[in-house]
Amino acid sequence: MADTTTVTVNIRRRPSISDPQGATVARALRDLGHNVSDVRIDKTIELQVPPGDPDSIRAAVTEMCEKLLANPVMEDFEIVINP
Amino acid sequence: MADTTTVTVNIRRRPSISDPQGATVARALRDLGHNVSDVRIDKTIELQVPPGDPDSIRAAVTEMCEKLLANPVMEDFEIVINP
Repeated sequence: MADTTTVTVNIRRRPSISDPQGATVARALRDLGHNVSDVRIDKTIELQVPPGDPDSIRAAVTEMCEKLLANPVMEDFEIVINP
Repeated sequence: MADTTTVTVNIRRRPSISDPQGATVARALRDLGHNVSDVRIDKTIELQVPPGDPDSIRAAVTEMCEKLLANPVMEDFEIVINP
């Protein structure tokens, strides 16, 4: 068994929240001649946690997201526990 | 057929490159009482491009990554074309 379990958290801005960094990158790509209609930039956080049962890992990581990793007003998060 | 194709680009720091933002978050999680041995924070970029054949989409997005989206010295990128 591995020493740690890798948990991936995808944190995405809600669709209604604008993404100025993405808009800037979209403009820069168009200036370079690329045909891009929209760009969104989001965060992926990879955590190494002690191995354990998936339900308790998910509960702990959900608490981390709610308390620190994600902004609950603007962002949604998705937790993937890698086998 | 959809108006646009969604392409997801995962941009990851090379393992040898340190991630100070991740280290800070790991420390903050430990201060909150969570058992986390390592945290890495990476970027996910979602592009909307005109539909077309996957090989030309991949070639175009690779060029975008090399020219603008990724830092070739520090980062690797992975391109996923969503069906």
